[in-house]
Amino acid sequence: MKQAPNLKDIYSAADRILPYAQITPVMTSSFINKIAKSEIYFKCENFQKVGAFKFRGACNSVFSLTNNEASRGVGTHSSGNHAAAVALAAKLRGIKAHVVMPKTAPEIKKKAVASYGANITFCEPTLAAREETLKQVIDNTGAFDIHPFDDPKVIAGQGTATLELLKEIQNLDVILTPIGGGGLICGTAIVATEKGDAISIIGTEPRNADDAYRSFKSGNLIPQINPNTIADGLRTSLSELTFSIIQKYVTQIITVSEREIIDAMRIVWERMKIIIEPSCAVPLAAVLQENSNLKNKKVGIILTGGNVDLDQLPWLK
Amino acid sequence: MKQAPNLKDIYSAADRILPYAQITPVMTSSFINKIAKSEIYFKCENFQKVGAFKFRGACNSVFSLTNNEASRGVGTHSSGNHAAAVALAAKLRGIKAHVVMPKTAPEIKKKAVASYGANITFCEPTLAAREETLKQVIDNTGAFDIHPFDDPKVIAGQGTATLELLKEIQNLDVILTPIGGGGLICGTAIVATEKGDAISIIGTEPRNADDAYRSFKSGNLIPQINPNTIADGLRTSLSELTFSIIQKYVTQIITVSEREIIDAMRIVWERMKIIIEPSCAVPLAAVLQENSNLKNKKVGIILTGGNVDLDQLPWLK
Repeated sequence: MKQAPNLKDIYSAADRILPYAQITPVMTSSFINKIAKSEIYFKCENFQKVGAFKFRGACNSVFSLTNNEASRGVGTHSSGNHAAAVALAAKLRGIKAHVVMPKTAPEIKKKAVASYGANITFCEPTLAAREETLKQVIDNTGAFDIHPFDDPKVIAGQGTATLELLKEIQNLDVILTPIGGGGLICGTAIVATEKGDAISIIGTEPRNADDAYRSFKSGNLIPQINPNTIADGLRTSLSELTFSIIQKYVTQIITVSEREIIDAMRIVWERMKIIIEPSCAVPLAAVLQENSNLKNKKVGIILTGGNVDLDQLPWLK
Repeated sequence: MKQAPNLKDIYSAADRILPYAQITPVMTSSFINKIAKSEIYFKCENFQKVGAFKFRGACNSVFSLTNNEASRGVGTHSSGNHAAAVALAAKLRGIKAHVVMPKTAPEIKKKAVASYGANITFCEPTLAAREETLKQVIDNTGAFDIHPFDDPKVIAGQGTATLELLKEIQNLDVILTPIGGGGLICGTAIVATEKGDAISIIGTEPRNADDAYRSFKSGNLIPQINPNTIADGLRTSLSELTFSIIQKYVTQIITVSEREIIDAMRIVWERMKIIIEPSCAVPLAAVLQENSNLKNKKVGIILTGGNVDLDQLPWLK
């Protein structure tokens, strides 16, 4: 198993990505606070480069390579946002990116990856097909593998969003993130815990892709089989590394229904006038649950991304 | 004709609305700058209270009333955003609001007005019906009329957005706004011109509701008959007051097609991840025209509002 990054690695990542990444705004909504009965600070990574927090991790990983490593180019597999993030980071470093994408990825994400000049190979939408296709691509090209989450540099990069959030907002009781492969929640948890603030870290997942929830409950890493959720960024399974960090640092994992995800997404669009993708709405959906234990708390939420196919809005289906 | 406000009135308005209105962010998009071949600063009034700049003018007008005047309550007619703005301003002052709305106004705007506790009377979607219905309401209630644009206090309030924009961004060459009744462009033009900065003011209109364009060209106030545009906030005609200020201060009026409006709106949604309503996309549509004279300019655009019926997106029709 790879070694988890620590707080110092995350500060280094923040310095490394500073010339390239956005310092994103923190937004609030009095309407949402009222219906949630809590005080929520949204860290708007939908305004990050490539429209998602994934740029932080990819950028840190790509710019951590030695010149020799970088000259081989980079490769990855991703349902979309990490693919775009690696493609842009590689372009900024002036190296080649080879990206494997499931053919079911949203059109807007395919277009984005192409627009950054990456070579794309499409495959079947299974983890096995993605890994096998990437292996072939790397064998053919010699590219350096930038894993979407099972990479200490990627995890460190994702943690930088929380460094910024904690600089701007003091005394948070809790921070919520969605969990896909676990890179974001691990980076978040390392920052929040190792900085010594008493902040709980809560993971949130679609009930239809609840591998982290089941793994966390059982204490054993259980891969996700056939996820069936609108939250296309959250269909992946944890790795050993991300599971071990989650076990160490995360307080609780909450699952939400597809209906709750769509409702929370629409509330953000209508009331905050910002565009978030379904995966991004999962933490708010958890806070809005009637039996939520987050009432009267000061809550941070990482809004993870805003890449939505505007021809396929979930409430119009 | 009423008297135009001056720069001092707009500074007073800024002080008056400060406890209630948002200081909205200014956003940029490197993608949009690239395709527009200019440097655009978007003043995001879609993040203003009630989701539109209209709150500035309504708030200034409602809080300028004497206690005696205010005790009568306030009334207005509006297709939506001004209605919500007056309703919220009245609620904040603790007085009654009576609002006349055309029955064709978007559902989201009707709901918003109702949610602020205003009394709503629906009427036919013509200026004559709106004015007549409001007259009846005022006769019945004694309410004080807060006109959507033919009111120096409203114009002064709308100008405060540009005070904020110029404080944050220096050396703009030009500022663009849409034109409906003309309140926003008049407030904008008074600030930009009377502050002594050499900034051109350009109005923009849907070609299908181009009364300001035709009035400006001919030198005579020509009312809008049967506007047929998706930009529901821009169907109204100028007043004598707003036309006289436009004649004095505005450099140019550009018209755009319905297709150009929808395309510009979608580009903002996709690339900036923010929600803007069709009326709000008109200035960007003008900048994006191939023969635009705004290339290589430093351009301010007031993004006027973000109230969109999410079940009725224009590109899905």
